[in-house]
Amino acid sequence: MMRTYLDCIPCFFKQALEAARMAGAGKKVQKKVLNELAGILPDFSLASSPPEIGRVIYGLVKRITKKDDPYAEIKKKSNKLALNIYDKLKKKVSHSDDRLLMAVELAIAGNIIDYGVKNSLNIDAEMARILDEEDKAIKKENKSIFDYERFRSALKRAKTILYLADNAGETVFDRILIEEIKRADRDKRIVYAVKEKPVINDALAEDAYVCGIDKLAEVVSSGSDAPGTILSLCSREFLAMYRKADMVISKGQGNFEALSGAKRQIFFLFMAKCPVIAKDVGCKLGEVILSLNRKA
Amino acid sequence: MMRTYLDCIPCFFKQALEAARMAGAGKKVQKKVLNELAGILPDFSLASSPPEIGRVIYGLVKRITKKDDPYAEIKKKSNKLALNIYDKLKKKVSHSDDRLLMAVELAIAGNIIDYGVKNSLNIDAEMARILDEEDKAIKKENKSIFDYERFRSALKRAKTILYLADNAGETVFDRILIEEIKRADRDKRIVYAVKEKPVINDALAEDAYVCGIDKLAEVVSSGSDAPGTILSLCSREFLAMYRKADMVISKGQGNFEALSGAKRQIFFLFMAKCPVIAKDVGCKLGEVILSLNRKA
Repeated sequence: MMRTYLDCIPCFFKQALEAARMAGAGKKVQKKVLNELAGILPDFSLASSPPEIGRVIYGLVKRITKKDDPYAEIKKKSNKLALNIYDKLKKKVSHSDDRLLMAVELAIAGNIIDYGVKNSLNIDAEMARILDEEDKAIKKENKSIFDYERFRSALKRAKTILYLADNAGETVFDRILIEEIKRADRDKRIVYAVKEKPVINDALAEDAYVCGIDKLAEVVSSGSDAPGTILSLCSREFLAMYRKADMVISKGQGNFEALSGAKRQIFFLFMAKCPVIAKDVGCKLGEVILSLNRKA
Repeated sequence: MMRTYLDCIPCFFKQALEAARMAGAGKKVQKKVLNELAGILPDFSLASSPPEIGRVIYGLVKRITKKDDPYAEIKKKSNKLALNIYDKLKKKVSHSDDRLLMAVELAIAGNIIDYGVKNSLNIDAEMARILDEEDKAIKKENKSIFDYERFRSALKRAKTILYLADNAGETVFDRILIEEIKRADRDKRIVYAVKEKPVINDALAEDAYVCGIDKLAEVVSSGSDAPGTILSLCSREFLAMYRKADMVISKGQGNFEALSGAKRQIFFLFMAKCPVIAKDVGCKLGEVILSLNRKA
């Protein structure tokens, strides 16, 4: 588990403001959100992980704005945008020398899609940049932040895989990777875990269905509404799967923040989207990461 | 006067954290600063200008960290760095077709020096980029954000000029511009106004002396310790000069934020360093601005 840094605090205010705006709140309500966040700030323990605090903040935004799902529109758009480029992504995989590697790269790069939707980025150009960066990272053979070999061999052995989803839209990129895993061995059992209730733009069961994950994997809920898999908040069913799965693939920063200190082995696939994470991991901002918490 | 936007609030926390670190505070004291800022946040009126709130925040940081001048080191380094490139800057001016224009451009570009010192930027490269951008802006003849013609003709007529300083280090770039003004007419009286007490890295009288401004202009204090010229906080002496000066040249964002709605004509020279200012002015982030609040 990653602790919360003091640098996260200004960012919490930024995120709360953004979420209030997403919820369609007027300026007065936006200010009320910031004031209430300020009111609970002294109670935050920096020993908590960012997703623990994030959960409290998004709960506060939902309560004050009276909107249960401020990011509903963004999630729909992200799914649509990603589905639109699905064929292109598949072609990238089929034209690749190492199909699995390309699928892994795409699954990580898909983490950018929410940002693209919000900021009207050219997703194609952005993806090209990320994949190029990733190639460089692999060429550097920097195994501490991109340990593809270990990922591939763990995947080969695993019969049951728990796949922890991150954002809506990114689910399409997850589907590409899951399709590759199934292509190599259709008997592997894959469980795709989404959030129980809306939090930021995190994928829910409906996003997994819209993006076609359910045709390949069992879609389950973590039982929690934290923007990251905080085990103490997860359902008993989820925890049973978490314990018995041969392999856990964790997507996104939030899951990394919540699980980096976990007792079992987890493969973390994410982009380092903020300077604090980049510093914690020891990588550059925007770099793609495939790391594991313990080797055994 | 520019009002405070909700987007300024996360940034206030960021600035407070940075200032606490500059003051050498440990993590506990840094957290205390953020908690106390959170405590007073609900009292902030968004009708206040950012420098009004900034003054309160830096006062709070000084009180809690028990450091009167957290940015003392940064200011010294900025002065030194700028003095080191003084000869180079002078050459740029003497090799230019329009010496005054180049001096104006440099005076605005000098606004970047604190950022360069803090982030170990290559100042030469950064300055080159800024000057290039500025050329483009001028070529566009976008007079609403770079009205050099009006500046030049006002300067020609003015006998007494009040020059409102911004940061330490930038003072050397101000000197370049003041030298050009004096070169065209040595009888012009120039009054260079600095802050009364330390606030962020704003220039004080000692910075003006170290950078050699006193050989060209009268160095006076605004009488205030706000990071921007808030007239209601200025000394009677300063206000008398402010009223009777033929021309007021105002440097930096803080002075713009405090004075953009002023009743008298003011020429604002600054770089749009934050997205909120850029949006308010109607320019791009990082763009250089030479604008005036009223034509008369």
